[in-house]
Amino acid sequence: MLTNELKQKLIEIVGVENYEDTKATRLVYSYDATPNYQAMPDAVISPRNTKEVSEIVKLCNQHQIPIVPRGSGSNLCGGTCPIEGGLVLLFRHMNQLLEIDEENLTVTVQPGVITLDMIKAVEEKGLFYPPDPSSMKISTIGGNINENSGGLRGLKYGVTRDYVIALEIVLANGDIIRTGGKLAKDVAGYDLTRLFVGSEGTLGVITEAKLKLIPIPETKKVMLALYQDIEAAARTVSKIIANKIIPATMEFLDQPTLKVVEDFAQIGLPTNVKAVLLIEQDGAPEVVENDIERIADICTAENAVSVQVAKSPEEAEALTTARRSALSALARLKPTTILEDATVPRSEIANMVNGINKIAEKYQLDICTFGHAGDGNLHPTCPTDARNHEEMERVEEAFAEIFALAIELGGTITGEHGVGVMKAPYLEWKLGREGIAAMQAIKSSLDPTNIMNPGKMFAKESRKRVVVAR
Amino acid sequence: MLTNELKQKLIEIVGVENYEDTKATRLVYSYDATPNYQAMPDAVISPRNTKEVSEIVKLCNQHQIPIVPRGSGSNLCGGTCPIEGGLVLLFRHMNQLLEIDEENLTVTVQPGVITLDMIKAVEEKGLFYPPDPSSMKISTIGGNINENSGGLRGLKYGVTRDYVIALEIVLANGDIIRTGGKLAKDVAGYDLTRLFVGSEGTLGVITEAKLKLIPIPETKKVMLALYQDIEAAARTVSKIIANKIIPATMEFLDQPTLKVVEDFAQIGLPTNVKAVLLIEQDGAPEVVENDIERIADICTAENAVSVQVAKSPEEAEALTTARRSALSALARLKPTTILEDATVPRSEIANMVNGINKIAEKYQLDICTFGHAGDGNLHPTCPTDARNHEEMERVEEAFAEIFALAIELGGTITGEHGVGVMKAPYLEWKLGREGIAAMQAIKSSLDPTNIMNPGKMFAKESRKRVVVAR
Repeated sequence: MLTNELKQKLIEIVGVENYEDTKATRLVYSYDATPNYQAMPDAVISPRNTKEVSEIVKLCNQHQIPIVPRGSGSNLCGGTCPIEGGLVLLFRHMNQLLEIDEENLTVTVQPGVITLDMIKAVEEKGLFYPPDPSSMKISTIGGNINENSGGLRGLKYGVTRDYVIALEIVLANGDIIRTGGKLAKDVAGYDLTRLFVGSEGTLGVITEAKLKLIPIPETKKVMLALYQDIEAAARTVSKIIANKIIPATMEFLDQPTLKVVEDFAQIGLPTNVKAVLLIEQDGAPEVVENDIERIADICTAENAVSVQVAKSPEEAEALTTARRSALSALARLKPTTILEDATVPRSEIANMVNGINKIAEKYQLDICTFGHAGDGNLHPTCPTDARNHEEMERVEEAFAEIFALAIELGGTITGEHGVGVMKAPYLEWKLGREGIAAMQAIKSSLDPTNIMNPGKMFAKESRKRVVVAR
Repeated sequence: MLTNELKQKLIEIVGVENYEDTKATRLVYSYDATPNYQAMPDAVISPRNTKEVSEIVKLCNQHQIPIVPRGSGSNLCGGTCPIEGGLVLLFRHMNQLLEIDEENLTVTVQPGVITLDMIKAVEEKGLFYPPDPSSMKISTIGGNINENSGGLRGLKYGVTRDYVIALEIVLANGDIIRTGGKLAKDVAGYDLTRLFVGSEGTLGVITEAKLKLIPIPETKKVMLALYQDIEAAARTVSKIIANKIIPATMEFLDQPTLKVVEDFAQIGLPTNVKAVLLIEQDGAPEVVENDIERIADICTAENAVSVQVAKSPEEAEALTTARRSALSALARLKPTTILEDATVPRSEIANMVNGINKIAEKYQLDICTFGHAGDGNLHPTCPTDARNHEEMERVEEAFAEIFALAIELGGTITGEHGVGVMKAPYLEWKLGREGIAAMQAIKSSLDPTNIMNPGKMFAKESRKRVVVAR
């Protein structure tokens, strides 16, 4: 419990203007982008620097007050919903891009920097930060690191984890540690850097990061391949990779998704086909030209009804932006949008898409499927209404079957959204009891009082998409 | 202590032919490739499968018998020296390449597979496994994973960690867990896969791994740039990267190294220059051609006295092979060869090379420096004689200064060799007491009885390069 005495101590640390506990503020931070999870924090706190974070954490550790570090709350796993109350910790004062190092190809940032702002800043120097979660316009880099965010370019360039090379972390005991460095190689001890990437705020508070950059590709091209047969589209994905071409992105959209995206973006997407693949390749001009030609040939051989290369960078940009807007577009259909990210080996995409459709039919639900086909990371999405309890039950059961299918096909319950509170009940399906026990042991070793984002990742009970009130 | 009763139980598990405790065998496994560390194990055991590993580990956990998993023992940190006795665990029966999956671009291996055998097998399918530690002819993939081995291609392609996507692990309690999958994206819980990569056998026994592959580059070219000025060579490295060219390898050799390598390999390397850069670029032919041309221009602008592009793949191969033989070549000079791998941000290479030379002069030692300049990973190497205690003292002090300098320049005490027993006394310099405490907490949480390769990574005392006898 946050006593008045503790409140005063917290105010002493951050200043009265950086401690808020009005009902209105608490309400604002009681939920994130994840539908159907809500819980009130006791207060919202905005430290100005790492030292203040450390002091806050020490105090919370002494008094067992939960801390939920939060960027923009754009995660889709309930990862920043303060389900056990306590403090929501914001980085609105720790939002500086500290350095772009052009000799070592690194950028140093505070956690509150908006992802796209950082991407634009490095691109101005001819450098490239590939991870591009669809939320990048609003997400923070701290949030991306905690969730190990993916994006459209995962296939060729990897995910956030592959670009984090150093962290400053405040541990649950208040200790400040620094991992890694501006180093391509570093094996001094366990890889704490990557352990913290994707740890969802459950192991400590990340207060600074160094990210690896690469030279920006010289050029890129985007193409659309249209299909009247979903399986043919999925087969094309495998075929392209098996032909040893790794496109920068290879996105899949089924017909229902296409329709709502076109309705939202109005850029002339075809809506009379069963599926499209949106494929981008980047690199040296000769390589891009050659790859796009070979990809087009493979699409045609796999029965694409049409293959169109974007005629201009603007047209290419419009296509990619439309794809990124899929969640926003789908969210307009019904009051509640359940978007998932079950992921399979890319060779299993056809089986997965078919399986999802069968499950949707079985539970009489509309499920639109789109996603990063190139890395097997699909987003089956169900527009529904949380007030319709009977339908929500069916949604719950359908997605449980989808997760089970993903595991059966050698996949995982979450490719890029994280476990948070939403996937916690399913984590054991992927890891087994022994795997979870190992992770819990690590959690307890670094956070023995369980103050760091408690209730996330490890399920206390099997409760699923149910509103939590406090 | 390994009682007779325990010995019988171990023999029951693996069969009498897979349990050896003759003095001769124990002696063979009392040391690895690291000079000056030796300790006798109680026995050497060769399980035939994961289930046997689990049974061995359970038994050892009950009776607190140390287990030292060992590949070919080619590590350079004393990582497989059984300094607290117990069992050396070999993978000579677990050495199968289980699968090459051309659709998902993965290879599944048992830990005992020889790295180069695996590389050759995947290259036959047109696929590429980039990590290429110089020991790859004899090292095992299990050893590479436990040490997070680097190699010549780290700059462009990363290190072993960047290619491990799934592991089967026997934990210290005997539990068998499986992490990851044939997945480009997976955020189901903490990243145990990467935590175990580079954990030096201190957290569990890796019994199977899936590795990510990429398409093999179409072509490659190799060039040599010769310098009469070490700083100019170092500056060239930074300049190439700052010009947004990422070569596949960028190796540095100073004159003393050049001389011994030429003496060993006899391929006509120049020995009358102060330093050379051996640069390789791979990729599409147009890109390679263009990059090599631009690199040559930069070398010339930075006062290279000569720039030569290898005229044939055979000449290129000979140059690279000569570079890989540097340790073997240097090892011929004196009875003991101390090879280190202090690593700095690449912008600091000139400062580091200069610093190493000053330190060598101060302690009146011959230190040859070569290494992976592109990723700041240098190998200052001192040919010496362990029997000369006075000189060994100076070697010890000189390398301590080299490590301190690396840290001061924003670097690390080890880029690719690991901590093992050799770097343990220096680990605190890089991580601070708080960082080590966090790592020890993780170690204790997963291995509470401290049976997994005990005495490694965390120093019990400040003893350094001293022979350990048991």
